[in-house]
Amino acid sequence: MAANKSILFLPGDGIGPEAMTQVRRVIEWMGRERSVSFDLDEDLVGGAAIDAHGVPLADATMEKALNVDAVLLGAVGGPKWDDLPFEKKPERGLLRLRKEMELYANLRPALCFEALVSASSLKPEIVSGLDIMIVRELTGGVYFGEPRGIEELPDGQRRGINTQVYTTNEIRRVGDVAFDLARKRSGHVTSSEKANVMESGVLWRQEITKLHQEKHSDIKLDHMYADNAGMQLVRNPKQFDVIVTDNLFGDMLSDVAAMLTGSLGMLPSASLGDVDANGRRKALYEPVHGSAPDIAGQDKANPLATLLSYAMALRYTFDLAEEADLVEQAVQNVLDSGIRTPDIMAEGTKAVSTSAMGDAVLAELDR
Amino acid sequence: MAANKSILFLPGDGIGPEAMTQVRRVIEWMGRERSVSFDLDEDLVGGAAIDAHGVPLADATMEKALNVDAVLLGAVGGPKWDDLPFEKKPERGLLRLRKEMELYANLRPALCFEALVSASSLKPEIVSGLDIMIVRELTGGVYFGEPRGIEELPDGQRRGINTQVYTTNEIRRVGDVAFDLARKRSGHVTSSEKANVMESGVLWRQEITKLHQEKHSDIKLDHMYADNAGMQLVRNPKQFDVIVTDNLFGDMLSDVAAMLTGSLGMLPSASLGDVDANGRRKALYEPVHGSAPDIAGQDKANPLATLLSYAMALRYTFDLAEEADLVEQAVQNVLDSGIRTPDIMAEGTKAVSTSAMGDAVLAELDR
Ligand SMILES: CC(C)[C@H](C(=O)O)[C@@H](O)C(=O)O
Ligand SMILES: CC(C)[C@H](C(=O)O)[C@@H](O)C(=O)O
Repeated sequence: MAANKSILFLPGDGIGPEAMTQVRRVIEWMGRERSVSFDLDEDLVGGAAIDAHGVPLADATMEKALNVDAVLLGAVGGPKWDDLPFEKKPERGLLRLRKEMELYANLRPALCFEALVSASSLKPEIVSGLDIMIVRELTGGVYFGEPRGIEELPDGQRRGINTQVYTTNEIRRVGDVAFDLARKRSGHVTSSEKANVMESGVLWRQEITKLHQEKHSDIKLDHMYADNAGMQLVRNPKQFDVIVTDNLFGDMLSDVAAMLTGSLGMLPSASLGDVDANGRRKALYEPVHGSAPDIAGQDKANPLATLLSYAMALRYTFDLAEEADLVEQAVQNVLDSGIRTPDIMAEGTKAVSTSAMGDAVLAELDR
Repeated sequence: MAANKSILFLPGDGIGPEAMTQVRRVIEWMGRERSVSFDLDEDLVGGAAIDAHGVPLADATMEKALNVDAVLLGAVGGPKWDDLPFEKKPERGLLRLRKEMELYANLRPALCFEALVSASSLKPEIVSGLDIMIVRELTGGVYFGEPRGIEELPDGQRRGINTQVYTTNEIRRVGDVAFDLARKRSGHVTSSEKANVMESGVLWRQEITKLHQEKHSDIKLDHMYADNAGMQLVRNPKQFDVIVTDNLFGDMLSDVAAMLTGSLGMLPSASLGDVDANGRRKALYEPVHGSAPDIAGQDKANPLATLLSYAMALRYTFDLAEEADLVEQAVQNVLDSGIRTPDIMAEGTKAVSTSAMGDAVLAELDR
């Protein structure tokens, strides 16, 4: 008998827990109405873990994360922990999960919901219908490279050092993910680096080019310097289908792309690793937005990005495309009916609370 | 007797030379009408230098650049030289100039010309009146850090390495430039890094904070992670006055900011070093746009960014604010009268050639 489907909830800080509460309601609905049930466990990450255990991710939590089918994370961080030393900050909990689970491929869709086009700071014709997938390398580059640190110099100065490093295999495995995704989309990959300035970018470009020739020549590939990619995202984002890039450029480009849609509160992400001996692909799902401490605990947060992250888990980890479609369609319908949390409000729409948004989604699922 | 004012022209590749030709005409006008004359020299950089000398910047040219008051550069690069090895690419000529002239502060205004608001992909209310100054560190960080390169690993893989490194002094001197500029503007500096992920960013934040307390506490300072800064530029760019950031983040953020204005063909930049023993501050001026090889030689290029770079030289190197104003006002008037090169055309305006744009500017200067 196959083991039950397991999910570890890591609500984290700020609006993370409130958003997660609404996801739980949808999960219960799934068990009730679709006989799709999960073993749910919950634990602490980020500031919440610091407060309880003195570290942003306890070893026991790490252990759990390594042994479930999927992790669903809320958000980490907040002013309370801003002054902690580097190694103790809430973000380190998230970075540890990414690294030890070896989640090397971070999928960040930048999708413009038709009902929210007007929320974008860009002209409607520039973003209407926008559908980009950014594939960001997530376990390498300057985020994890050694040597790193701050050292004292003999003359009393200090020097801060980080190392950007990529190997052939690190580049190829995330490249494979990007090409495979493009094949199910519009068949176009744009690879981005600064090969005109950085040798690590030269290697990136060479390896992606080789991989393309060897295994993915059915896909259209082009290369674009990362600064230009930032510009082109602003100028004409619909020229892109899949963008594949390194950890740091991916951090920046995916945030710019997300903001084009005007609705950060709507965007989910998936971080995927390799398939292990048990046939399980390690995976963590989380919204693109942060912990928004300024509105935490006020029942104002938008739970939809976290809910759509759960939908991504249904699709990618549990192969439940139909159920994923149900959730995504319910979200779409709620938006179309003009129901909004404050962050995506516009004229002629109705601002509702986090929990009322959850109600609305459940009502749509029930129809 | 004071030496004459000297400028070295480095037209470079693509549309560089055509744009520079129009600047020469304005310089001649200055000599004729305002008795402001320069010793002009001209030399090769980028692909043009590769074709002539086999290197993207000859030693003799470097020597000249070190001995003039200001360098005015067109643009470098083009498909012809794309397949050259890393160390021989056109860009290396530009990077050598920056490094050996020690041009550590790169000033990139992102200004939205009122007549061009509609050219932006952003909504008019988001960009109208936009006036940001990005101060990018230009001689440090991952652009120049050692060790760097591509190495073979025992298992047949390769590894690409670059090093991000900043010292206290490197951070402080560019910080000073940013605070001093803010004092003449709206008194607000935003410093940007990834201190949540990189120790070099932690040092950056600490040193900027210290510098602020010691010397610039009259200025409002805040810190913003670079990914968030990219988002905020798209969401609400008018929240910024001066942004100070490192070489790589500056490369990306200044390009995103430039694209917000919708008129890359309009944006100049200045790269400044320290004042030397002769009281001379090393300086290089260049447009933000690239060499646009696709339209080179067709009399279609917009010469205004290069012309405005010359205006920045008048202001910053030669202390000729009145003459700088004249040039900037002439450009403004030309735009207001609806004259446009193809890149900034809109309904109801007239597309003219590069040389006709030069004519129009001269006609305005003559009025
Ligand atoms: C919180 C932070 C460490 C993280 C990152 O830089 O990767 C975040 O910005 C992200 O993009 O998920
Ligand atoms: C041409 C290239 C080396 C350069 C850079 O990366 O600095 C360019 O993008 C710039 O911003 O001036």
